[in-house]
Amino acid sequence: MYDVSLPHPYLLFLGDTTEPGYAKTAFGLRDWAPQRCTGEFSCPGATVTTGLPFLTPAQAHAAGARALVIGVANAGGFIPPAWVAALVDAMHAGLDLIGGMHMRLRDIPELRDVAAQLGRRLIDVREPPARIPIATGRPRTGRRLLTLGTDCALGKKYTALALTNAFHKRSHDATFRATGQTGILIAGGGIPMDAVVADFAAGAAEILSPDAAPSHWDIIEGQGSLMHPAYAGVSLALLHGSQPDVIVVCHEPGRERVLGHPEFKVPGVREIIELSLRLGSRTNPRIRCAGVSFNTAKLDAAEAARVIAAESERIGLPVADPMRGGEAFDRLVDACLA
Amino acid sequence: MYDVSLPHPYLLFLGDTTEPGYAKTAFGLRDWAPQRCTGEFSCPGATVTTGLPFLTPAQAHAAGARALVIGVANAGGFIPPAWVAALVDAMHAGLDLIGGMHMRLRDIPELRDVAAQLGRRLIDVREPPARIPIATGRPRTGRRLLTLGTDCALGKKYTALALTNAFHKRSHDATFRATGQTGILIAGGGIPMDAVVADFAAGAAEILSPDAAPSHWDIIEGQGSLMHPAYAGVSLALLHGSQPDVIVVCHEPGRERVLGHPEFKVPGVREIIELSLRLGSRTNPRIRCAGVSFNTAKLDAAEAARVIAAESERIGLPVADPMRGGEAFDRLVDACLA
Repeated sequence: MYDVSLPHPYLLFLGDTTEPGYAKTAFGLRDWAPQRCTGEFSCPGATVTTGLPFLTPAQAHAAGARALVIGVANAGGFIPPAWVAALVDAMHAGLDLIGGMHMRLRDIPELRDVAAQLGRRLIDVREPPARIPIATGRPRTGRRLLTLGTDCALGKKYTALALTNAFHKRSHDATFRATGQTGILIAGGGIPMDAVVADFAAGAAEILSPDAAPSHWDIIEGQGSLMHPAYAGVSLALLHGSQPDVIVVCHEPGRERVLGHPEFKVPGVREIIELSLRLGSRTNPRIRCAGVSFNTAKLDAAEAARVIAAESERIGLPVADPMRGGEAFDRLVDACLA
Repeated sequence: MYDVSLPHPYLLFLGDTTEPGYAKTAFGLRDWAPQRCTGEFSCPGATVTTGLPFLTPAQAHAAGARALVIGVANAGGFIPPAWVAALVDAMHAGLDLIGGMHMRLRDIPELRDVAAQLGRRLIDVREPPARIPIATGRPRTGRRLLTLGTDCALGKKYTALALTNAFHKRSHDATFRATGQTGILIAGGGIPMDAVVADFAAGAAEILSPDAAPSHWDIIEGQGSLMHPAYAGVSLALLHGSQPDVIVVCHEPGRERVLGHPEFKVPGVREIIELSLRLGSRTNPRIRCAGVSFNTAKLDAAEAARVIAAESERIGLPVADPMRGGEAFDRLVDACLA
């Protein structure tokens, strides 16, 4: 009923980028959604590469690609005039265009005109679908897992993606459900929760993870934090609408202050677990916490192992860094599936 | 910096309405904002009246009116062709147009054209202001009171309005801050929280009640409920952004099921008090609950007095029906100001 999917496979467009840090989206797609990526394409002068084969738009279309994804962002989040000819070529080759930048594709008259003339789609993944309904609270079939955080930007998306892969490896039917623009590009669909009108946010979460087979898992990317001074409402709407059976709480050990809001302390893991279960039980009384995901990217291996073991001991639940994997992560996956 | 105010005083427009139930907005304005109402105006055939003097748009403008407010809604929420000539006349007389219906004023080409030609404003109060910022969580000067509910549509707006009047009677400087379309028309400004994009909802609450004199009270109209399966995210964003010093929890005794969601029980008053204080303390550690507002419209006077006294005894806080007033309401106001 609600189509939240993107045309794919993708041709990854790198513009004329020379700074690898600007190509995060392309690298993320290569790493997390290789099956969706046919190759890469760039303008003369580009030095950044994903290592995927270089294909012209026509070659990519012949190889099955259905959309060109703008895989780079520059400092201003805009589309420079130098890219426009390449984007027009891609539409002539049969590809739709997908962007996730601040500047909308349709705000560039030449792209808009060519798309209209050729019947191509200009898709801005920051735009939610039309006609999102008010949440019903009705229980849905299938199983759901939601990642929640003690703050923003500490691993909710990576944890959900890693769990989805781990579920697949164990032959469980599982779908990653994206709620932010990067996740949407990786998943090939989703709803940018941060762009939904507040009254419809829980309804958006409901249509994002619809009725499914009883053994199917939706692994839903969390947003913000229930204790975030600016975004808690989004997090609560996502929790209520997702109706998760299982939650995994994500935290970065050592982060003491809320990103961008240094006057606020990052809440404790236990506090977020307890609050999530309490609030989440409103729409799913069976909600439980399987464990905790630690982002230990700033620690060495020994220190990471130490803080993970100590936290697991302290809270009595599996704790793991999904990027490090290992037995700790296996135990976290076991607990999710238990 | 952020102008959330409407041009006024108003001329109340009743269309060609013959059913008083459709004129709730006009009656609400007459009852709650008489100082903003210059008179009423209607098309031939109308039988509904507010009792205010009938003025043509030209007479109303001469008497100081600056906007015509559509004070009626019909079943479809649309603007019938029969009204358009009257609305055009009003613009020629110098009045802006204000609507709160589902149909937008600017979606009627004739109104749009005349407004552009004369430089009049077509204001749809369901539209939030542009460029709402992300919430900062920064404490603001002045005092704030927020009404919260155990459900929707049980008296949060009326309670806030009645408390504002009571504060004024005791010579306290207080401003009613509207968060829904009816409240916005009554107050002459505000932000329709249900129409704000989710990421900005707490930010909208922050700009709605800006820094003020230390003794000034903002009395903020609550929305939804923290336990509502569809709208809890809006309620939490409003709570965080409002940073209330005082909350008053609104409830309708006898209502057992959530309006429109009969599979959900209405939470208890104590539960909402406790949850509101816990979540609200994130952005205002000094938050306290002054008491409870009961909507006893369906009870007779004796029964209302009985349930109010029993609840006050049970929870150890003042309980009152602001529409009935009396000593119970005085005690609730005392507790708010304590």
